[in-house]
Amino acid sequence: MTNENAQRIVLASRPKGKPTEGDFRLEQLPVPKPGAQELLLRTLYLSLDPYMRGRMDIAKSYAPSVAIGDVMTGECIAEVIESHHAGYAVGDIVLAHSGWQTHAISDGEGVRKIDSADAPLTTRLGVLGMPGFTAYSGMRVIGQPKPGETVVVAAASGPVGATVGQLARMAGARAVGIAGGPEKCAFVRNELGFDSCVDHQAPDFAERLAETCPNGVDVYFENVGDAIWRAVAPLLNRFARVPVCGLISQFGVSEFPGPDRLPGTMRDVLSKSLTIRGFINYDFAELYPDFLREIGARVKSGEIRYKEDIVDGLENTPTAFIGMLSGRNFGKLLVRVAS
Amino acid sequence: MTNENAQRIVLASRPKGKPTEGDFRLEQLPVPKPGAQELLLRTLYLSLDPYMRGRMDIAKSYAPSVAIGDVMTGECIAEVIESHHAGYAVGDIVLAHSGWQTHAISDGEGVRKIDSADAPLTTRLGVLGMPGFTAYSGMRVIGQPKPGETVVVAAASGPVGATVGQLARMAGARAVGIAGGPEKCAFVRNELGFDSCVDHQAPDFAERLAETCPNGVDVYFENVGDAIWRAVAPLLNRFARVPVCGLISQFGVSEFPGPDRLPGTMRDVLSKSLTIRGFINYDFAELYPDFLREIGARVKSGEIRYKEDIVDGLENTPTAFIGMLSGRNFGKLLVRVAS
Repeated sequence: MTNENAQRIVLASRPKGKPTEGDFRLEQLPVPKPGAQELLLRTLYLSLDPYMRGRMDIAKSYAPSVAIGDVMTGECIAEVIESHHAGYAVGDIVLAHSGWQTHAISDGEGVRKIDSADAPLTTRLGVLGMPGFTAYSGMRVIGQPKPGETVVVAAASGPVGATVGQLARMAGARAVGIAGGPEKCAFVRNELGFDSCVDHQAPDFAERLAETCPNGVDVYFENVGDAIWRAVAPLLNRFARVPVCGLISQFGVSEFPGPDRLPGTMRDVLSKSLTIRGFINYDFAELYPDFLREIGARVKSGEIRYKEDIVDGLENTPTAFIGMLSGRNFGKLLVRVAS
Repeated sequence: MTNENAQRIVLASRPKGKPTEGDFRLEQLPVPKPGAQELLLRTLYLSLDPYMRGRMDIAKSYAPSVAIGDVMTGECIAEVIESHHAGYAVGDIVLAHSGWQTHAISDGEGVRKIDSADAPLTTRLGVLGMPGFTAYSGMRVIGQPKPGETVVVAAASGPVGATVGQLARMAGARAVGIAGGPEKCAFVRNELGFDSCVDHQAPDFAERLAETCPNGVDVYFENVGDAIWRAVAPLLNRFARVPVCGLISQFGVSEFPGPDRLPGTMRDVLSKSLTIRGFINYDFAELYPDFLREIGARVKSGEIRYKEDIVDGLENTPTAFIGMLSGRNFGKLLVRVAS
């Protein structure tokens, strides 16, 4: 097993705006050797998520940057292939934040064993993983949809948006998705069961969104930012809630021409008693057991549906990641690193 | 009693930006006669509050506009001087939304009897009235200050700000006020007991605010808007709460030149898990009995302090109101209409 070579992808340079292939570098190296109390992990699946774009910049947020030359961060499903750690045996399947690489050494910190009998392994990186939990906790704590209300979410075919809309429906609310292109919109309506889905690529997107929300918007689950916000903000009802978990459209943009819309937004916040609240899923870690139990059961029963977009081979990770930032994936994006 | 004339102040024209005397008109009229089941009220004190500026514009918010030619709205302490209503007797002292006038007819709707033995009558328009309740409910529901945290509030010598800071101190938090000029700042520190107060008229205001908040800001109680927000926003800590109850600095301003600060603010909301939440005190009406009990006891005991700025004569109301919008009042602004 340790005769094979290892591969890893490191950050070669900090992108200006959209990342390019040249911002990443694939490196070959010998498979590392675990020391005392350490594990050797072989990556099976790597999750690609929008937050990774933020890690490529100089840190301005809660999370540290990836340093130039360091392995890109990411959550993985991995197999223990060598163990000097009493808590893990060869063959264990684990979740680990081991990054964009085929092999990783771990001391067990942040590693969690998972049972593949519960649900397909890959769901632990999507609907039953960080994206699903982001949807669950943001809706439970901040969104709080009520029967008859209207919930809007963008990137609706993605793992966060898909779950948000399905949770809205379960709460008796109307789920309106926003997605890019007719194929994704059809999937959101027909497969995920949203009440409606509007194509943000349509030239009359804002008008169509308004038509689709005749009673306004009570919850806007913000995971995209600026471009979509312009269309949604005028539709927000009194007491609307806006959980903010991502701003993928704003990454790498540092200058926004006027007019300055902040004072008008604050006026809306006041006159409509709006709540705008940012969060990362770790903020609500105490809800994780509830999430696994409630959503796990509904995924198993088929009540909650999801879509995965799986790319093969670590070497294809940068291309897949860059595509995701432009919405080219269709469903939760994963890289199958080994099988 | 009904031989005297009545006076009222009506909206003569809609202001562009700051109101002027010409936007109001004082009218003389006979004292009105109450019909069956009606009361005749004689205004003792009229409360002047920033929200009234919003009512002078075409309605864009929860509250209706004052129509041209209509009496300006406002909350009053009044005496019942004639009653055909079983619930009220001549001599009763009441709170009523009877507006900028010496006399008003009421059917009892929205009228509340008050007991002058509890606290000075005027407090029911200030620290024990709508402004005090705005402070109380916003801090209890949204601000939620914790021991050791830093709470910042502007217009700190006014009735909302003064109460916010004193509630912060009672919660074990540090209270930092912002006020206009050295006299107000000294009052906020020495009489209201804030830990610190920064003069927003100082040329280095933003730097001084930052120095005064070495551990950042955990609660910013927003009642002023744009100008102060620019200085506070960079200081907000992770998980900071921003109750928004007023934007007095933005009234009548409709164009804000770029750059557009909204995307950067949303990025802060996300990266710092901020909560920005607008409210009006009616949103939390269920807390009103708690407010009267808790804050009433503390006002009576002298633990909570307040300052009133009382102007004599209904005819002086427009000047006093216009001055308030520029911060010329010092404490809760009231008009003594009759004694």
